[in-house]
Amino acid sequence: MNNPATFIDHTLLRPDCTAEEIRNLCEDAVEYGFAAVCIPPVFVALAAERLYGSGVAVATVVGFPFGYVPSETKAFETQGAIARGAQEIDMVIHLGAAAQKDFRAVEEDIRQVVEAAGAAPVKVILECCCFDRQVKEALVGCARRAAAAYVKTSTGFGTGGATEEDARLLVARAGKDLKVKAAGGIRDWPSCSRFLAAGVTRIGTSCGPAIIEQWRREASL
Amino acid sequence: MNNPATFIDHTLLRPDCTAEEIRNLCEDAVEYGFAAVCIPPVFVALAAERLYGSGVAVATVVGFPFGYVPSETKAFETQGAIARGAQEIDMVIHLGAAAQKDFRAVEEDIRQVVEAAGAAPVKVILECCCFDRQVKEALVGCARRAAAAYVKTSTGFGTGGATEEDARLLVARAGKDLKVKAAGGIRDWPSCSRFLAAGVTRIGTSCGPAIIEQWRREASL
Repeated sequence: MNNPATFIDHTLLRPDCTAEEIRNLCEDAVEYGFAAVCIPPVFVALAAERLYGSGVAVATVVGFPFGYVPSETKAFETQGAIARGAQEIDMVIHLGAAAQKDFRAVEEDIRQVVEAAGAAPVKVILECCCFDRQVKEALVGCARRAAAAYVKTSTGFGTGGATEEDARLLVARAGKDLKVKAAGGIRDWPSCSRFLAAGVTRIGTSCGPAIIEQWRREASL
Repeated sequence: MNNPATFIDHTLLRPDCTAEEIRNLCEDAVEYGFAAVCIPPVFVALAAERLYGSGVAVATVVGFPFGYVPSETKAFETQGAIARGAQEIDMVIHLGAAAQKDFRAVEEDIRQVVEAAGAAPVKVILECCCFDRQVKEALVGCARRAAAAYVKTSTGFGTGGATEEDARLLVARAGKDLKVKAAGGIRDWPSCSRFLAAGVTRIGTSCGPAIIEQWRREASL
């Protein structure tokens, strides 16, 4: 298998994370060749400066982690993040609208972020732990119709993280137009490899370096 | 003691809370005579409509719960919330800046929300569980200099909620210009009454009705 670093969003979204930690994260991301860093909006300009020309993308979060800001705020956050150098947007849906099965509202909310993002891919966080199978399937449809690039399992701050069952469900429903990102609780290479085998093409984790070290040891056997 | 309902922000900030739950919350708030409802930004217009003329204020959250959106986003959220009918703003500081003791940045972030809020009182959530005594004292100073109305102990979603020790510390440092709100884990009347005795003048809780029922039983003895 090729180096799995290219599938990993090197992630630091702790509420009290500091500029110093973001600088270190960016250094690690370049060293390991991760797909992106996924960081708080307030640090986008810093990361964009550090990662300029490195091939590592800057991803940030919108409406994170609860998703209950209005669409106009999500669009504003998205435009601002892109103006400061973000290249990918991980947004949280309005979970309360999904809970009430108001899928038209969910789709419209996603669409406003996708439009604000322009050419930048939008990953739509469904927070799968909140919903049953039927709702999760409907939410993938919302993301597809709103022209998102990815559906993503979890914020990493909900009552549950990524499960392989959810990953398979999302991959099956996503079809060709939509990719799948798994995030939340993926901390080692065996777990990571199972999600990749399930058809996931992006993994969000704060354990990227440890995962790659494990993969290297295994690959050298 | 007078009815403590007038000190309570009747709060519902669960990520997946629905419009239906917000309608019920507003009804309860009117029935019990709470100071305010504290609700997600996406439901401000709904709550404002329901509470018009009731004497119950609409409070909402900004930069919630992680505080790491840029000041421009917090200001945008604040202006939007007020335009939709919010009367009080509960904002989260940039915890990462506080962790690095960049108090000038914390103060400026608060100031931008206070300016965006105009006449609406701003409650500054310090997320006390993240910081030592010295930092917490400095943060109260930031809120005072930025002309906030309140400092508030916690988001209710951090690693710890309100403690009486923190409440006393905030009251002592707040002086005359600043009030104190305690929130996070306050679920019964005995606990609520201890915070009020410590000098707190607003309590954020999702257990307001149960607290008032307990107080009534005690008051009738």
